[in-house]
Amino acid sequence: MTLRVLEVKSLQSDHFEESAPVKSRACVLEQFGQPPVVREFETVPPAEGEVIVRILAAGVCGSDVHISSGEDPRTPLPIILGHEGCGRIEELSGDIRDIYGEALRPGDYVIWERGIFCRSCYYCEVAHRPYLCPNRKTYGISIGCAEPPYLQGCYAEHIHLRRGAAFIKLGESDDPAVIAAASCSGATAAHAVEEARIRPGDSVLVVGPGPLGLFAAAFAHFAGAGTIIMVGKSYHGLRLELAKEMGASRIVLSDEGSAEERVGLIRSLTDGLGANVVLDCAGRPAAMVEYVDCVAPGGRYVLPGIAVPVGEWPVKPFEQIARKNVSLQGLWVSDTGHLLSAVRLVQSGRYPFGKLITHRFGLEEADQGLKVMAERKAVKAALIP
Amino acid sequence: MTLRVLEVKSLQSDHFEESAPVKSRACVLEQFGQPPVVREFETVPPAEGEVIVRILAAGVCGSDVHISSGEDPRTPLPIILGHEGCGRIEELSGDIRDIYGEALRPGDYVIWERGIFCRSCYYCEVAHRPYLCPNRKTYGISIGCAEPPYLQGCYAEHIHLRRGAAFIKLGESDDPAVIAAASCSGATAAHAVEEARIRPGDSVLVVGPGPLGLFAAAFAHFAGAGTIIMVGKSYHGLRLELAKEMGASRIVLSDEGSAEERVGLIRSLTDGLGANVVLDCAGRPAAMVEYVDCVAPGGRYVLPGIAVPVGEWPVKPFEQIARKNVSLQGLWVSDTGHLLSAVRLVQSGRYPFGKLITHRFGLEEADQGLKVMAERKAVKAALIP
Amino acid sequence: MTLRVLEVKSLQSDHFEESAPVKSRACVLEQFGQPPVVREFETVPPAEGEVIVRILAAGVCGSDVHISSGEDPRTPLPIILGHEGCGRIEELSGDIRDIYGEALRPGDYVIWERGIFCRSCYYCEVAHRPYLCPNRKTYGISIGCAEPPYLQGCYAEHIHLRRGAAFIKLGESDDPAVIAAASCSGATAAHAVEEARIRPGDSVLVVGPGPLGLFAAAFAHFAGAGTIIMVGKSYHGLRLELAKEMGASRIVLSDEGSAEERVGLIRSLTDGLGANVVLDCAGRPAAMVEYVDCVAPGGRYVLPGIAVPVGEWPVKPFEQIARKNVSLQGLWVSDTGHLLSAVRLVQSGRYPFGKLITHRFGLEEADQGLKVMAERKAVKAALIP
Amino acid sequence: MTLRVLEVKSLQSDHFEESAPVKSRACVLEQFGQPPVVREFETVPPAEGEVIVRILAAGVCGSDVHISSGEDPRTPLPIILGHEGCGRIEELSGDIRDIYGEALRPGDYVIWERGIFCRSCYYCEVAHRPYLCPNRKTYGISIGCAEPPYLQGCYAEHIHLRRGAAFIKLGESDDPAVIAAASCSGATAAHAVEEARIRPGDSVLVVGPGPLGLFAAAFAHFAGAGTIIMVGKSYHGLRLELAKEMGASRIVLSDEGSAEERVGLIRSLTDGLGANVVLDCAGRPAAMVEYVDCVAPGGRYVLPGIAVPVGEWPVKPFEQIARKNVSLQGLWVSDTGHLLSAVRLVQSGRYPFGKLITHRFGLEEADQGLKVMAERKAVKAALIP
Repeated sequence: MTLRVLEVKSLQSDHFEESAPVKSRACVLEQFGQPPVVREFETVPPAEGEVIVRILAAGVCGSDVHISSGEDPRTPLPIILGHEGCGRIEELSGDIRDIYGEALRPGDYVIWERGIFCRSCYYCEVAHRPYLCPNRKTYGISIGCAEPPYLQGCYAEHIHLRRGAAFIKLGESDDPAVIAAASCSGATAAHAVEEARIRPGDSVLVVGPGPLGLFAAAFAHFAGAGTIIMVGKSYHGLRLELAKEMGASRIVLSDEGSAEERVGLIRSLTDGLGANVVLDCAGRPAAMVEYVDCVAPGGRYVLPGIAVPVGEWPVKPFEQIARKNVSLQGLWVSDTGHLLSAVRLVQSGRYPFGKLITHRFGLEEADQGLKVMAERKAVKAALIP
Repeated sequence: MTLRVLEVKSLQSDHFEESAPVKSRACVLEQFGQPPVVREFETVPPAEGEVIVRILAAGVCGSDVHISSGEDPRTPLPIILGHEGCGRIEELSGDIRDIYGEALRPGDYVIWERGIFCRSCYYCEVAHRPYLCPNRKTYGISIGCAEPPYLQGCYAEHIHLRRGAAFIKLGESDDPAVIAAASCSGATAAHAVEEARIRPGDSVLVVGPGPLGLFAAAFAHFAGAGTIIMVGKSYHGLRLELAKEMGASRIVLSDEGSAEERVGLIRSLTDGLGANVVLDCAGRPAAMVEYVDCVAPGGRYVLPGIAVPVGEWPVKPFEQIARKNVSLQGLWVSDTGHLLSAVRLVQSGRYPFGKLITHRFGLEEADQGLKVMAERKAVKAALIP
Repeated sequence: MTLRVLEVKSLQSDHFEESAPVKSRACVLEQFGQPPVVREFETVPPAEGEVIVRILAAGVCGSDVHISSGEDPRTPLPIILGHEGCGRIEELSGDIRDIYGEALRPGDYVIWERGIFCRSCYYCEVAHRPYLCPNRKTYGISIGCAEPPYLQGCYAEHIHLRRGAAFIKLGESDDPAVIAAASCSGATAAHAVEEARIRPGDSVLVVGPGPLGLFAAAFAHFAGAGTIIMVGKSYHGLRLELAKEMGASRIVLSDEGSAEERVGLIRSLTDGLGANVVLDCAGRPAAMVEYVDCVAPGGRYVLPGIAVPVGEWPVKPFEQIARKNVSLQGLWVSDTGHLLSAVRLVQSGRYPFGKLITHRFGLEEADQGLKVMAERKAVKAALIP
Repeated sequence: MTLRVLEVKSLQSDHFEESAPVKSRACVLEQFGQPPVVREFETVPPAEGEVIVRILAAGVCGSDVHISSGEDPRTPLPIILGHEGCGRIEELSGDIRDIYGEALRPGDYVIWERGIFCRSCYYCEVAHRPYLCPNRKTYGISIGCAEPPYLQGCYAEHIHLRRGAAFIKLGESDDPAVIAAASCSGATAAHAVEEARIRPGDSVLVVGPGPLGLFAAAFAHFAGAGTIIMVGKSYHGLRLELAKEMGASRIVLSDEGSAEERVGLIRSLTDGLGANVVLDCAGRPAAMVEYVDCVAPGGRYVLPGIAVPVGEWPVKPFEQIARKNVSLQGLWVSDTGHLLSAVRLVQSGRYPFGKLITHRFGLEEADQGLKVMAERKAVKAALIP
């Protein structure tokens, strides 16, 4: 039935070209805990408002590791993995424009919002916080590939984007593997920094020097933070080096000294007050117990790093929250505004995001990409289909 | 061609019922400066995502007077007037839900956002201020009735709402003529009060006791304003009475005394500081010159009342803005969030909005409705089709 | 030495009148856990910037019960209890003005900010959040009466206010016993509502119908909340009655049904989303576990009700905070801005705050006041010295 | 009588050291329009809470030119000029601490808030916007030197700071001439950027490459602006060079092309929308008429550059404000929070503020400093007493 509609539509499309169906390869997760396999799909012509993009790079996100092992309850099988990506438009139907109102054309190099929103619920329409839309779906996370248009993930030669996607045009000098990381890690960091309401000169503590934490450090620096402290493990050599280049003025090792000593050190680095903002990109309750004591009175403890259940966190409401007028701010994914901020951050050229991508793989090597992320051998891996 | 699409679609619709085309009457503006005339249209079955509503009441907005006379450059001809309305769902196609996720069904009594947004531009997707969407269209203002689905305004028995409209269900005790006014006057006042950032106890000056100003006074009161002063003319008897019931604690007559005296009086009523917020619902430059001097240092002068060009306003940047750290805040229309606030305000029952609707007319009497609004004989008129 | 300074100062004071030292009686806590006793003090002439006020009413705050039993580590002994109060100026030295710049004179009926701030630290001067000033002292809580000027609490005939106090003039129709409650309960509720950032029409859940909770309900209503739900125990008859008059549209009994049922009921009363804002005025971890599940995604859980350590609260960071993008907002005391909001709320006359004061006692009966508060026999007690 | 107080006080001071009165030289404006002259004053020992600072550098602010010519109505005669300065503490009385609670001691290198606030009015205590305090005084602008403690301006060897000043300790590597500029130009720019509410990636237009505009450009960059455009004249060679180093990505010449061409160019540089924020550091109505058309819908036009009356600005309320939902935000001076932000900006080392100080003069050459500023030969001049 869908096909029939498409046939009718296609008669009206200016872009329709009668040709043999094009094949496209994609990396499919067919069973949780098993490596994804490369399969070939027939592409479906785009319906009104839809866009087919040739993927230039897909990011291997830490959450892809969780998804592959079946920890994310949203994931159907089979699914084409990959929610971070960018590429070149191959085909589109109708008058589709980027966020600035420029018409999109085949050949345009673009990035898009990874979430699909209903645009009619309280969160989309009233609260203007679409990331909370209860009907939100995400390419590569919650849309399978059993039905047309099949290509709904970024670990693929093509992605078939649905009507209503928001697009940002990229510049020819933007490295696809780098800019793709803005889709999720970058945009989530942008969201965290937005909720953190950093005032120029504020002190910021970032916990966890993974891709999210490195983006968060750069964003905090970009947004005018003064002292930026990164917390990481002593064996995180490269990540901690990168943290400095992303703007961290000090590194605190979480596996040296006692918790009291670390808290004392962090306070002494922040004029005795504690950090105005903590961006906890690790999300482990054991660490929270320590770092919540590093937030200054009146400060904000933001939690962008939690994508799956992590157990319980024993909070002391008087000592850690009420008496200090502190807020513990949860943080869930992001929207197009955050994506734009992340793209602008990378494009600013102020931070060495190129170094973030330590590993690049072909489509057939997706499993290796997941492995180096799971084992933390990579800072961030990219697939180049 | 459009029709052909619709025919194809209709074959797929679960809701399609083969029946003789239903006729619907509507009030059409065919020439600027001429009274609208009642015409009969064939209804078109709703395509996927569309809703046909039986109008229970349409508000006659002050801007309809401007539109009828051709002052609004957005208006095509012919057009069915009316952007304020509410009614009962008659037919719909697909799984359509209200903002709270409840499925909509024929018979539901609803109100909807009057603006249609593109949902892919910077303002819709990044800034989350869809009221600034450059592609925004408004039922009854910028969509004509020359082409199907024809019924695109509220001065009609039915309105055919496009895919993507946001809906709020109403209660059976809500008076349609009253609640319809929330669509535009109420929602715009909600937006103005949002930009005004009223702190509980703040003093607020409202200029102009028309429907917008009365909604603004009630909203300021609802949002916790302390002293609320309404400025109006001495012959605005009923409106000024209503202003008091809407929460105004004091009335200042703009046609008594000198400008200096009025400014002095307003300052003395606001602890010598001036009003923390001025909601200028009149929008006449001659009055602005006077009332901008009534805003307290650090305050906000919000301009929700300007729908058409009004000439120039000579501002003194040092004395009136910089030295006082004042903001002059422009205000353009509203979105679904503001509509919801306005509906909740009316439903709160705290203010006598029933008295706002001083005149009710049938569809054939639309011209009388426009006349009583133009001549300010009505506070607010409603059409009951 | 202090006295010597005062003598020197007094020679310069325009207000000095040579007369026999005036005596003033006050209610002194000499031992924790023992009833306070009435003692007589010699008044000290006001130094430059100081004001002596004849107390007309002092509020008996719930925290006075904690203070009397020695639970508040800030309290020195001996101390004159009472941080809520208002009265009539008896003597002052220098050119002292209220917040609106009006000169203060003997006989003026006033209320003042109960906190004393250093005005040179980061929180006073940079963050503009003086309630977080590490040098903050509070009359009746953290300043003893062993040294001149002795009279540093409100359970007394007079209070001797230090240089730099902020004053609000009251109206002759303001009932002292009622308006005194604005000092702490009202101002803290104002602060909580400020952090809650209520948007007109938002749903608000208030936990605990004590004086703080009743003020919070009224403030939420005053600030434009739509649905307001009060949670209380079935035996809180009078308090729950008052909650309705303060604006609560629904009461949920915390001792009826299961926690799941209560959470379900509260969600069903809030359009299925949960409350946009929870104002937890009870502050018991056992209850938090339940009510944190009642906050809507994107909402705020504000904690104004915790004045002393209450143990630990096991929070689920993924399910309760991150996934829902919720903030847990601590709340500590208040400042002059909140006091003004609270005074304006009471003066608005929209809420029956007179009924809040269920018991009035003389100075000698302070112990009874503490008892009826501790046993929750009173909603709120006042001392009339 | 004032003297007598001081004598009495001095007897009580722990810090008093009996020594011959120290002389201090300062640059005094005795007649408007005449060059200031160097005079010698006797220093007065600091009373409780007061601090005497040895000035290391004073900034010559553009407003000093206006003050010298008598354009600022606040200025009494005779007066020691200079409101920007920093230096080393020479003597102090009492327990005085910096904003982080560290005790101050002779020898400490410090900067301080240039404004003196009453701390008891609505703006100090309720609105927390002390820069609007009606009783605000400024060293070097509104306090003369006819009465002790005389030394109330920064064009001097010493300044005698009053009780309640807020202090920030500086680092030994901070160049006094550079950091002094943070006092006023830097802090005002910080305030402007705060009101501008820049979101990471926003586009910002800065009008006028003087010291304020250069600080504003750097602050916009520091706060995460994306595209930053500086508007200046073609003969502003050095200033425009500096603008680029401060973060401006593009320069638009205001004396080339037509106004329409410039507006079109600026729009094309800002994705067709206009700038999200305009920081108008020129403050000339003739230019405002042009640049207000460069602000994007929903944007903010901030006016930090107006220190004296500049006439009238004909604003089109519909086209320029209401229809675009734009705010015109006045901006008046700054407070300690802004000063701290400015100090942190300079200390970040990210911008070449050293190049801002193009001229340095001795105390006797103050007139030359004023001249190079008036004639715009200097970007910024400093006095090194």
